[in-house]
Amino acid sequence: MNALGLVSTRLCAGLMCRRSAVSLSSLRFSSGMTLSQIDEEVAKLLQLKAQLGGDEGKHAFVLKTAKGTRDYNPKQMAIREKVFNIIISCFKRHGAETIDTPVFELKETLTGKYGEDSKLIYDLKDQGGELLSLRYDLTVPFARYLAMNKITNIKRYHIAKVYRRDNPAMTRGRYREFYQCDFDIAGQYDAMIADAECLKIVYEILNELDLGDFRIKVNDRRILDGMFAVCGVPDEKFRTICSTVDKLDKMAWEDVKKEMVNEKGLSEDVGDRIGEYVSMQGGQDLAERLLQDRKLSQNKQACAGLTDMKLLFSYLELFQVTDKVVFDLSLARGLDYYTGVIYEAILSQTIPALVSTPAEQNGADEAGVNVGSVAGGGRYDGLVGMFDPKGRKVPCVGVSIGIERIFSIMEQKAEASSEKVRTTETQVLVASAQKNLLEERLKLTNALWNEGIKAEVLYKKNPKLLSQLQHCEETGIPLVAILGEQELKDGVVKLRNVVSREEVDVPRADLVDEIKKRTL
Amino acid sequence: MNALGLVSTRLCAGLMCRRSAVSLSSLRFSSGMTLSQIDEEVAKLLQLKAQLGGDEGKHAFVLKTAKGTRDYNPKQMAIREKVFNIIISCFKRHGAETIDTPVFELKETLTGKYGEDSKLIYDLKDQGGELLSLRYDLTVPFARYLAMNKITNIKRYHIAKVYRRDNPAMTRGRYREFYQCDFDIAGQYDAMIADAECLKIVYEILNELDLGDFRIKVNDRRILDGMFAVCGVPDEKFRTICSTVDKLDKMAWEDVKKEMVNEKGLSEDVGDRIGEYVSMQGGQDLAERLLQDRKLSQNKQACAGLTDMKLLFSYLELFQVTDKVVFDLSLARGLDYYTGVIYEAILSQTIPALVSTPAEQNGADEAGVNVGSVAGGGRYDGLVGMFDPKGRKVPCVGVSIGIERIFSIMEQKAEASSEKVRTTETQVLVASAQKNLLEERLKLTNALWNEGIKAEVLYKKNPKLLSQLQHCEETGIPLVAILGEQELKDGVVKLRNVVSREEVDVPRADLVDEIKKRTL
Repeated sequence: MNALGLVSTRLCAGLMCRRSAVSLSSLRFSSGMTLSQIDEEVAKLLQLKAQLGGDEGKHAFVLKTAKGTRDYNPKQMAIREKVFNIIISCFKRHGAETIDTPVFELKETLTGKYGEDSKLIYDLKDQGGELLSLRYDLTVPFARYLAMNKITNIKRYHIAKVYRRDNPAMTRGRYREFYQCDFDIAGQYDAMIADAECLKIVYEILNELDLGDFRIKVNDRRILDGMFAVCGVPDEKFRTICSTVDKLDKMAWEDVKKEMVNEKGLSEDVGDRIGEYVSMQGGQDLAERLLQDRKLSQNKQACAGLTDMKLLFSYLELFQVTDKVVFDLSLARGLDYYTGVIYEAILSQTIPALVSTPAEQNGADEAGVNVGSVAGGGRYDGLVGMFDPKGRKVPCVGVSIGIERIFSIMEQKAEASSEKVRTTETQVLVASAQKNLLEERLKLTNALWNEGIKAEVLYKKNPKLLSQLQHCEETGIPLVAILGEQELKDGVVKLRNVVSREEVDVPRADLVDEIKKRTL
Repeated sequence: MNALGLVSTRLCAGLMCRRSAVSLSSLRFSSGMTLSQIDEEVAKLLQLKAQLGGDEGKHAFVLKTAKGTRDYNPKQMAIREKVFNIIISCFKRHGAETIDTPVFELKETLTGKYGEDSKLIYDLKDQGGELLSLRYDLTVPFARYLAMNKITNIKRYHIAKVYRRDNPAMTRGRYREFYQCDFDIAGQYDAMIADAECLKIVYEILNELDLGDFRIKVNDRRILDGMFAVCGVPDEKFRTICSTVDKLDKMAWEDVKKEMVNEKGLSEDVGDRIGEYVSMQGGQDLAERLLQDRKLSQNKQACAGLTDMKLLFSYLELFQVTDKVVFDLSLARGLDYYTGVIYEAILSQTIPALVSTPAEQNGADEAGVNVGSVAGGGRYDGLVGMFDPKGRKVPCVGVSIGIERIFSIMEQKAEASSEKVRTTETQVLVASAQKNLLEERLKLTNALWNEGIKAEVLYKKNPKLLSQLQHCEETGIPLVAILGEQELKDGVVKLRNVVSREEVDVPRADLVDEIKKRTL
């Protein structure tokens, strides 16, 4: 009996149990229960629930992945590998090392780090022992790692999956399991040098991935807070106004203002004052100009932010990236833990299908990221201190590459292109046109493997030549090494170019070199 | 207030609740409950449990990873990357593609696949929606993937983490989160060719990893079953006797026999007959001899297995691996789903510390794997059919590389070796001996990055030359490019070899080539 049979039997048992009226006499409770008594009762209730659940529609075994998740097929994996290679090469070029952390953390490690989004955290079932949750991002585990190991200096990248029970997942085209790809620099250093390197890295990666033109918006949490203060926003409304401002990339200013006034209770005046600032964009010049601004220059926070912004742009000049970087006062990233510079990279030309098909909207890897956003990050000097028993701070700055969105774009480019995506790297198929040559084929294949050649052979005693050639065409294998009685007698192999169909006899002794030469 | 503060406050609230005597009046039950009523009651009970639990010792926030899990630090990651590269190269040489599946599956996908071990599955909390579990291995998700996508032919590898709530985890030194590294060939092919390739792959990988001498034991589920039948073991005891035989690599025959007779109820006679067979080891010759065995040759299953074994060895001969492969009738791997050939690779010389330190015993990635086992697998022709709605079979054969054990051995070798494990690939540090040269350092670093050189620069305005050189020594950076007023004037850079301390002036125009030449 197969698994399906087994499953249905179990469900039937549940059904019968229901029909014969479930006795709940054993489910009496009294006050003063112990932990283990509660556990027992919970187990009983859940078992009962499973049985009842069997009665409510889902009898047949459903062959699918969990909601909001997907498999990656070989073609998607080939694209994923290509993207990872470009990104990892860049991280390594900048001297980064890498770490890995478990997929789940103690539940309390994640508690209090994500504000309202905490409800999106996946918890594990309490099966006895610790309460665990799947990681929600890579930043909090990184901070936990630094505090736990008392590390004060590190430049690391971490590429791994994170988990969010985003409810409108399928309608918004987001996945509940998705990759994050983070690069962070931790350590007490002179201002803005590490911050500038993070922006340089975004610039390099987006250039190398060849995703078209892009812009990197930069702002500073302190400038935002200073701006709100001088505009007359009450302190306790900074956060909520900040998240309204964050919508400016999707909404017109009028609507943003309406939300601030009607929903968040700002006066028209205050709204208009904010409106003046958030329309400003520029570079080092804008930072200098705002340092002279009558109101802003009175605010200590804003001045600190603007002075750093000026310095940042001087380093960005040296790193030759100012053609793409814009100081934009409307940028206000959502996460609570940012304390200084923040940034976000946006593709200029959103590929049209990206907006319209749900499958393509899955790139958004952080709440509130706009459609063309492919990277974001900032400085978070307080997070590690939240984990340190003595509250010791480790200043950090980092960037997260929106790798899922990039996968989507690359997949789409691959679809549109005439070039086929290869999912294997096989250089040659060892084939035969005649019967009874399996042993010779295996022997030659073995010799090629031993020489480091990527070789395949069909697992058939007497495959037809046509099906061997078809296998090459389907999978993109460029060469076929054909063995026949005559070739064996002559000590040669017929090497065939799959595309041009050109064939040439190569002496066995020269075969490896010849294959290497033709598949460079 | 930081996270610690928040957590303690929450726990205190729980404490107070306990002190004021929890009222359980709301927890009355009646029969005929609905699902949502049960959910409510369960939630109440669990909340109560959390409050009571808060009273039992763990008030302070504990800075740790979940039980049975660990972080990988940069050094461990560097070793991990090296091992993965060797293994993945081998898989690619054999024409494999790769897939990925979600870390959790529908709970019912895993149901009925692991026998008794099902209790080790991690379930996710029911937060509404589907019931989910963390994957227990990569084989069942692979079979689900094939059935779901109606794939009948594939050669794929999959390297990913799996999860097992192994209770004696820490004492036995096993981890609850660990890597599996699987290679499988699915498809209806002529006998034993794909099986032989799996063994060739194990051979290649163990050779290349340079872990010392090893042996690969081979047997066949059908030979085992046939042997049990002719020895007089009742059908229903095949599985349990099989798992006793599986202990022969850790226990003496006398003890194994004792278990069979005293615990499993076999007669002395039957035990002795089994004893004769399971002491047999050999190659193709042994398969031929057993095909003539008076009793075994009467058993259809055994004959089929032995005929295949003979054929397998003829292919292994062509693949030049018979020096390490042994047909061993005592090999009996635990998993239910094997239907034909099974195998296991064992290191001959177990590194002594491997046995004694718990940290080193973590390699065992399958229940019942013995100390030196580093790979195992076999043929499972029925598993995919368990998922197919019409029960269509897709024959499979595969191997799982015991990657965690291999990591441990490599880490230990690295510890013992005098050579330092580098965690970055940085070729050159851009440094300065004089003050006020930050801009020049950044400019040069930028130029090197743009040319694809892996370069670092310290994030300090005026770092001491000594600390710059120390950074190189600590992290293994081989070269320093030193800038000074004089060098800038002369249009050169002083290139210093960190180990030999030799310095040479290199014209700026030649610097990239010179660095490439020296760090090949």
